[in-house]
Amino acid sequence: MLDITNYIKKELSNQEFCGGNYGKSEAPKELSPEAKKDIVAKIKPILTPETIVLAQVDPIVGDIEYNFNKAKKYIEWANELKVGAIAFPELFLLGYPVFDIIDRYPKLVEKNIEYLEKLAKCTGKTKVLVGFCEFNRFYIGKRYFNSVAVLSNKKIETIIRKTLLPVYSEFSDARYFQSAEFDSSERIIQIGKNRVGVIICEENWSDKDFFDHPVYSFDPVDKIIKEQKPDLIINCSSSPTRAKKEQLLHNMLSFVSKKYSTPIAYVNQVGAVDNITFQGASRLYDCDGKIVARAKSFEEQFFIVHPPVKCPNREDINRVYALPDGLEKTLNSQKAFSLDYEPDLERTYLTITSSIRDYFHKNGFKRAVLGVSGGLDSSVTCVLLADALGPENIFAISMPSSITSEASKSDAKELCDNLGVNFAQIPILNMFKTSRDTLDEVFKKVETKWCDRFEASLTNDNIQARSRATILWGIANEFPKAMPIATSDKSELYMGYATINGDMSGGFAPIADVTKTKLFALARWLNRNRLSRNAIPEAILTKPPGAELAIDPKTGKPLLAEDALMPYEFLDEVIWRLENLHQSKEEMLSETFLYETKHNTQKATKIAWLDKFFRRMQTALFKWSIMPPAPIVDARSINKTEYNQPITSKLKFY
Amino acid sequence: MLDITNYIKKELSNQEFCGGNYGKSEAPKELSPEAKKDIVAKIKPILTPETIVLAQVDPIVGDIEYNFNKAKKYIEWANELKVGAIAFPELFLLGYPVFDIIDRYPKLVEKNIEYLEKLAKCTGKTKVLVGFCEFNRFYIGKRYFNSVAVLSNKKIETIIRKTLLPVYSEFSDARYFQSAEFDSSERIIQIGKNRVGVIICEENWSDKDFFDHPVYSFDPVDKIIKEQKPDLIINCSSSPTRAKKEQLLHNMLSFVSKKYSTPIAYVNQVGAVDNITFQGASRLYDCDGKIVARAKSFEEQFFIVHPPVKCPNREDINRVYALPDGLEKTLNSQKAFSLDYEPDLERTYLTITSSIRDYFHKNGFKRAVLGVSGGLDSSVTCVLLADALGPENIFAISMPSSITSEASKSDAKELCDNLGVNFAQIPILNMFKTSRDTLDEVFKKVETKWCDRFEASLTNDNIQARSRATILWGIANEFPKAMPIATSDKSELYMGYATINGDMSGGFAPIADVTKTKLFALARWLNRNRLSRNAIPEAILTKPPGAELAIDPKTGKPLLAEDALMPYEFLDEVIWRLENLHQSKEEMLSETFLYETKHNTQKATKIAWLDKFFRRMQTALFKWSIMPPAPIVDARSINKTEYNQPITSKLKFY
Repeated sequence: MLDITNYIKKELSNQEFCGGNYGKSEAPKELSPEAKKDIVAKIKPILTPETIVLAQVDPIVGDIEYNFNKAKKYIEWANELKVGAIAFPELFLLGYPVFDIIDRYPKLVEKNIEYLEKLAKCTGKTKVLVGFCEFNRFYIGKRYFNSVAVLSNKKIETIIRKTLLPVYSEFSDARYFQSAEFDSSERIIQIGKNRVGVIICEENWSDKDFFDHPVYSFDPVDKIIKEQKPDLIINCSSSPTRAKKEQLLHNMLSFVSKKYSTPIAYVNQVGAVDNITFQGASRLYDCDGKIVARAKSFEEQFFIVHPPVKCPNREDINRVYALPDGLEKTLNSQKAFSLDYEPDLERTYLTITSSIRDYFHKNGFKRAVLGVSGGLDSSVTCVLLADALGPENIFAISMPSSITSEASKSDAKELCDNLGVNFAQIPILNMFKTSRDTLDEVFKKVETKWCDRFEASLTNDNIQARSRATILWGIANEFPKAMPIATSDKSELYMGYATINGDMSGGFAPIADVTKTKLFALARWLNRNRLSRNAIPEAILTKPPGAELAIDPKTGKPLLAEDALMPYEFLDEVIWRLENLHQSKEEMLSETFLYETKHNTQKATKIAWLDKFFRRMQTALFKWSIMPPAPIVDARSINKTEYNQPITSKLKFY
Repeated sequence: MLDITNYIKKELSNQEFCGGNYGKSEAPKELSPEAKKDIVAKIKPILTPETIVLAQVDPIVGDIEYNFNKAKKYIEWANELKVGAIAFPELFLLGYPVFDIIDRYPKLVEKNIEYLEKLAKCTGKTKVLVGFCEFNRFYIGKRYFNSVAVLSNKKIETIIRKTLLPVYSEFSDARYFQSAEFDSSERIIQIGKNRVGVIICEENWSDKDFFDHPVYSFDPVDKIIKEQKPDLIINCSSSPTRAKKEQLLHNMLSFVSKKYSTPIAYVNQVGAVDNITFQGASRLYDCDGKIVARAKSFEEQFFIVHPPVKCPNREDINRVYALPDGLEKTLNSQKAFSLDYEPDLERTYLTITSSIRDYFHKNGFKRAVLGVSGGLDSSVTCVLLADALGPENIFAISMPSSITSEASKSDAKELCDNLGVNFAQIPILNMFKTSRDTLDEVFKKVETKWCDRFEASLTNDNIQARSRATILWGIANEFPKAMPIATSDKSELYMGYATINGDMSGGFAPIADVTKTKLFALARWLNRNRLSRNAIPEAILTKPPGAELAIDPKTGKPLLAEDALMPYEFLDEVIWRLENLHQSKEEMLSETFLYETKHNTQKATKIAWLDKFFRRMQTALFKWSIMPPAPIVDARSINKTEYNQPITSKLKFY
């Protein structure tokens, strides 16, 4: 395989990953016109009319002109190479996910059709498969179809309409799109000598033999293959990443291609939109369910594949790029809670940095400001920001209060020095004092009417957190393109252990879907896998987490999080069991936790922890609802795009 | 009609509305056992085996025991009265809306089935129709059915499964529920001499002759009536309120009952869940499409109706309660923007107060704290809170800065005195000064690295708003069951004219779906329709809105909102056109706005306003995403439960 992506990418985007050694920004090398010519000369002889390009691209939702221009360049290359076809992801011309914008802005849909017609004009013999949004001109149903147009010779050759419309988790296709009538003959296009069946994303996910409990009663792949016997299936997808997803996707595609003895070419987009990140990793399976080609993850790519049906296997085309380290190790569904996060850490890192980069750059921001406490959450967040945006674009502020230890201050500074991010230390003692004084005055007045004032309260803790957020948002008000960052992690969000208008306030929350035990693993992974090793000081990795907002009366030292909550190892297993096994409190009580195999745990303690978990989670629902955007990372999450629960509810967690 | 609701309500809930004269809390009169006997004696003779009770009840989502107990009391009454049937709303036993809780907590579903079986045991001859969530035991499809069980003689007689599953606007049924196979014979139950067809909510909304563009290709009502010729249709619904909805519902039900010459009995729930409020207003239509009975709005009711098929019309049973004033006036779809909000003001008032009350009480809160500026938004919010929660449970804090005028301070105090809510004045000058000093120090340090500091910024404005929020959240930290309230209105949220961690921060945002021009109308309506007239000082209604956060350099006086934004009358029409007509900028440019008919408006000015609107709206998307819960009021909204747009998007508003 000869990868000409870099050349194209350079023109279209300034995003670049640098392979195995993370944390170093390096501009992609631009090809000279001569080099480009050389590539074309070298690559052309091995291409056939059956060759297909999987255009692994990154669209911008609603920016149809941008998406059009990107498609146009890819198509020009494909034409120059005289390949059989080039396939773009689902809904590429409009951008995915669309959510409700097509209902509110029907002009967008008109525009995407106008540009589809313009795109058709750019085509020659090479067939172009491109996702777009189509009006439903029929009398009944939702207003739109989620369609793929096949373009060639300056014309729209045919249109394929998605039939299976997911509504679950982060998907809401059936909100906007009408499920189309299905006719397998309309799904077949000719690419060279091959008769190719075209499907759209979810249409691949309905195999009755693969899934224990399929969602749909209809399987388009089965129908196409049985009725039309195509030489190949092309699947145009926009499929988000999350833990375990690659394993499921690979197993499913491998199973289906083997079952029907039919190769499957799968193209997926890259880039991120708010909470959703796309991995790319477009690929080709042969008739035996073997993966013969896979594109890179989290990068745009002009990926050339040669369907292995009737032609000799060409090693130099069907190249397999390694997935981010370790994903192959997770091909079996996880049966028990484990602290071995290693297989998912590279993907986690790339998902979060990719989502930060796109959220900032696509929204016109370039700088991040965050508070660094010397604790784990803000330290990991700081590394991720530095790698995503460049250290010069990060301002890390240490904002000590009277409770903050000297070690915390120096750890935070050391981290920032290691990363090369901008650093300043500003004590918040005065802000705290004035706020407290003003509040004392307020409380005295309120007390005259509401006489049941709490004897102990979180007021002091929260004033500190809110003063810090005021400073970060102040910087964002004062300096261009700067965004404050929320540093809450998933374990603490489950417990509501985060301050409204405080640490959970920001324009983006990079680690909100990463549990504390996984964050520790990620921190160690970062220290090993970044070019500049051990950026996170060892002290940060070894000290027990604590918010340093209050003094523990028992010890006279800052209250530790595990004392306020419960051991993180236990907490994270509760979350895992809840999200993945949907276990009730009773069920959790009757099973042995990993923590219990290592520590002598009284039954009463376990009951108290579980009670605390479910009680605190119920009151944390409100906080989830006002969280800023945060990348979905885990297999299941409390991310707003994925999980929706009424705040006003009494579940009693039977 | 003899209304025995009050008696039952008293036992189940302490919620009570007081009819026409709002703003006065009065405990419902409890019936003595003798009075209860009298009612039963009086009412019994006019009841027949065909009589039906529409149980207009208010469930708590997930609190199955609570819902069960409520149902049990209603059923005992129905049994005592020996009526033919009692019908509860859709999904009543589990509570509606469920969102994703049934996926994550399958035990809840087990529990609701256990309680359904217990409920069956409570039944006698009177048939009970009750909504519940059923496991899908079939191999394929979503895990659950949205079902209605028919119970009688201690048994589950039959189960009816919903076929049309809405996914649009605030609805997401198809996320969790499988659409059931339809067999019209299974929809028929016997109630006295009547053969009755049972449908669930959305199944009524698919008439090909009524809707210009029906969403579904299948119409269960048509099928049942043509195949089974029932004497009556009962529709078990959980249908939220919003502007224009009553008009649409009435027209549709009237049309369908007339078209098929078949009466329709419609039962709907009351109460609120986060952003969604239910109006109740259960009703009965005769074969001519005439409404012959309608229950009260926004109140629980044990509503007895007598299907007018083969029996004489009994005036004392089929009573029509007036809807909140004026809804009948909106029976025609609005063609042009209008400032005549009068027809919707009572419903708006009841929707918001009902939603505040339920959000507080069902979540264990009772007190609200808010900042009162002497402006329109906080004044109207304060009235709504006082009426919903009782003035003694409100603490209104005036927090003047150096910009706050004397008039604003005295207006705020006068309002609070009129309402009898607790009031305190606390200047924020010190907090502002210390924050500003700390920030100046921060900015100096940041400037050494980021040298492009803005010349003018919103920093000062926002420090004021954030200091105020810190005070309100401090009170919530220090006093039990107290919740800070966000006072942002819809017009300003569209423009992003609200401060993060400032005025848009709170536990609930009562007026976030009310535009500014409608708020003025609502304020005047409140002054006319509350027992204590003119609670809102005239000065608040006449002065031009302004946030009093900054001085206008042109006038030397506080900057007015309309100078910072555009005239509210124009702004609100842009919003109306966008939400209801889905017009683009170009389309709006070519049409004449109401404002233009009154004011000489330059084309360039109009273009500038529209540009500003769309530009500011795009950057406001983030703020919408972190808004606290807010009741859906308008016909269309930007409420998170209803409207979802990627923040990372470039629409260009073609």
